[in-house]
Amino acid sequence: MSFREDGQSTLDWVAGYLERLRELPVMARVEPGEIRRALPASPPDGPEPFAAVLRDLEEILLPGITHWQSPRFFGYFPNTATDAGILAELLIAGLNVVAVNWRAAPASTELEGLTLDWVAELLGLPQGWHGHIEDTASVSTIAALAAAREATGGRVAVFSEHANVAIEKAARLVGLEPRAVPVDDAFRLDLAELDLTDAAAVVATVGTTGTTAVDPVPALADACREAGAWLHVDAAYAGAAWVCPEFAWSREGVERADSLVVNAHKWLLTPMDCSLLWSRRPADLQRAFSWWQDILETGEDVALNLSDYGPALGRRFRSLKLWAVLRCHGRAGLQATIREHVRLARLFASWVEAEPGWEIAAPYPFSTVCFRVDASDEENEALLERVNRSGEAFLSGTRLAGRQVLRLAVGNARTTEDDVRTAWEVLRREAAC
Amino acid sequence: MSFREDGQSTLDWVAGYLERLRELPVMARVEPGEIRRALPASPPDGPEPFAAVLRDLEEILLPGITHWQSPRFFGYFPNTATDAGILAELLIAGLNVVAVNWRAAPASTELEGLTLDWVAELLGLPQGWHGHIEDTASVSTIAALAAAREATGGRVAVFSEHANVAIEKAARLVGLEPRAVPVDDAFRLDLAELDLTDAAAVVATVGTTGTTAVDPVPALADACREAGAWLHVDAAYAGAAWVCPEFAWSREGVERADSLVVNAHKWLLTPMDCSLLWSRRPADLQRAFSWWQDILETGEDVALNLSDYGPALGRRFRSLKLWAVLRCHGRAGLQATIREHVRLARLFASWVEAEPGWEIAAPYPFSTVCFRVDASDEENEALLERVNRSGEAFLSGTRLAGRQVLRLAVGNARTTEDDVRTAWEVLRREAAC
Repeated sequence: MSFREDGQSTLDWVAGYLERLRELPVMARVEPGEIRRALPASPPDGPEPFAAVLRDLEEILLPGITHWQSPRFFGYFPNTATDAGILAELLIAGLNVVAVNWRAAPASTELEGLTLDWVAELLGLPQGWHGHIEDTASVSTIAALAAAREATGGRVAVFSEHANVAIEKAARLVGLEPRAVPVDDAFRLDLAELDLTDAAAVVATVGTTGTTAVDPVPALADACREAGAWLHVDAAYAGAAWVCPEFAWSREGVERADSLVVNAHKWLLTPMDCSLLWSRRPADLQRAFSWWQDILETGEDVALNLSDYGPALGRRFRSLKLWAVLRCHGRAGLQATIREHVRLARLFASWVEAEPGWEIAAPYPFSTVCFRVDASDEENEALLERVNRSGEAFLSGTRLAGRQVLRLAVGNARTTEDDVRTAWEVLRREAAC
Repeated sequence: MSFREDGQSTLDWVAGYLERLRELPVMARVEPGEIRRALPASPPDGPEPFAAVLRDLEEILLPGITHWQSPRFFGYFPNTATDAGILAELLIAGLNVVAVNWRAAPASTELEGLTLDWVAELLGLPQGWHGHIEDTASVSTIAALAAAREATGGRVAVFSEHANVAIEKAARLVGLEPRAVPVDDAFRLDLAELDLTDAAAVVATVGTTGTTAVDPVPALADACREAGAWLHVDAAYAGAAWVCPEFAWSREGVERADSLVVNAHKWLLTPMDCSLLWSRRPADLQRAFSWWQDILETGEDVALNLSDYGPALGRRFRSLKLWAVLRCHGRAGLQATIREHVRLARLFASWVEAEPGWEIAAPYPFSTVCFRVDASDEENEALLERVNRSGEAFLSGTRLAGRQVLRLAVGNARTTEDDVRTAWEVLRREAAC
């Protein structure tokens, strides 16, 4: 194959894809197994041209793709692979650096430290925290809880019942017993129910997955200090909002955390995967993860080897895409995106509030709105299904206080007011069916 | 920024980079901290053009990059981001799918299952094993050991003292006590020293990191069956060789493993990261990792959600690059690459064997040769350092039986006989200093 010629075709395909996102049904319209059956059961014996890959991507795979890049994707936590982030991934793959240690990847290692400091400055975090990149918040949490286990000797991980499922997965993986604490009426961890007996760590969430509630971090920091427990803050989604001073209230107490995760691939315009993990106790992360063998010894300061701070030995040059995004958007660009998303979410909520037969189901401090029609759980579920099958917008559902609700999350940089209005029109139309 | 225009510049940069790889010093010639000091300490307030990113990549970062893509990179286990793999990464970033469950990413989920079956067929693995992709062998091993812990209730992970450091990291992370078994004269796990008391799992390595030795897998499979322990096979590097029938000997006994990892990003032409994990006991992986919450419930068969089989909830569309590589190279292309690398390694070994004052330090069953000059450890270390500082080739060292040795691993698809010859000439020249 010719890298330049096939590269041109690939670039054209991606550019065209980004230009026609609004024409594509947001949720894939395929049945389980359908994509697989359309492809050969066995690999080819000889080489095929790259053009065949692009052809089958267009003809066979595309109908099986739920378009996370669509401006009308409002499910889960939307994200955006911005132009700078996408092109940086091409650079990362071209360089194909594996940062097993400093010597194997000096630029990758040092740019990772620098960009994490940049983001720390943008988000108003304390100076001097040690930052590095993991693939996902799941793995960042695993790293934090493993460090907490080593540092405290406790045997329980405590978190709200509205914490992301990744927290319980991580706790079980590292051998900590999960203890879920009930939430209060606003879906925040209920301090009255907190029990830190034998706790190794408390995971406080800023921006829970269901409603984006903010747990009482300052009080949890007090409790952790008293109990000798590690405080990990999961701000995977909402931490990005701290780039705007008006969201500093949701950062309160975070300066006392032992570790913190914010996903750049959620609300900071960076493609998957790029989960940012900071800690003010990096030596405890090293104690959990620093195991070396002769082949990797290079004589440099071991503190420079970022694989000492997390589970994986091999590491991609992920900081390159984060750096490209931070430079091409700047503080002002990130702020503008966050503010517009929050404005759109509040606008959507105002329409729901004004509409008879509809109701807001939870506070909406950021860009995610939980709501429902005044009807049975089954009717709300069926409504969600009809909206998603329309292909005009994609939303998620969740259960709050035993009731089924719908959930519209704004988080794609291409989303406009018209896109949110379309979602609302589709919701009303389908509710009237 | 303009995606098409900046994309063209990016594509040109990558194409130019791949064309001038032989002109660049393989190992970065920078001191710790030098790259970081050359960059601004704070992020920009406003947006910068993408051209500035490309400029700084060329002028500031490039000198800090150790070129894993170089045909004269012989360190660690070399890898190759082939043209098809690089361009597929551009597609992956453009689509930016997050495969949290089937519905969110039908094509990603199904292509992952299909490509893992394709590779299983290419490598001659048993039919019906469940395969999925993790980022690195570190995380694949974590998944396997967590499943072993759940399935067996044992509390020890057993592996050879020559197993990769990632095995001990993984064992400690999931709370298993690591037990290293001495190796025999050929650096294989010594069965006479095996103790499976309280064993949850045995990790057998096919192609150890130091010498690429092959542990006695059939006997370890017998021992695991008797002890009720899980057998995990780490063939991260050498498993790729099974695409050639002449390496089937090193696959013996693997058909009885409970889980197996082969890294497509090592010797299967795929860019970082793409670690392939198979298991014949997928229900045990699910038991370790299947934790869900309302927002992710979609009504489909939970077995379709690949995040049920490993630590991470969010997953990139990694199968797309594996699929592109398999199609653009085919079985014949993969075989040709493996065979040429093995030929080059044997050729290099023949030169070492024929040269007075040099010696081979271990058997070389695949494409990696351990050797030394007949001199002190310090002199071998200094030789390695001089070769790497020359920029003409990059090798690693390791310690074998208490002695310092050098290690030349062939594994880059662009490496030619001339490149290997250059490395040998540089070695002899620097040894004569």
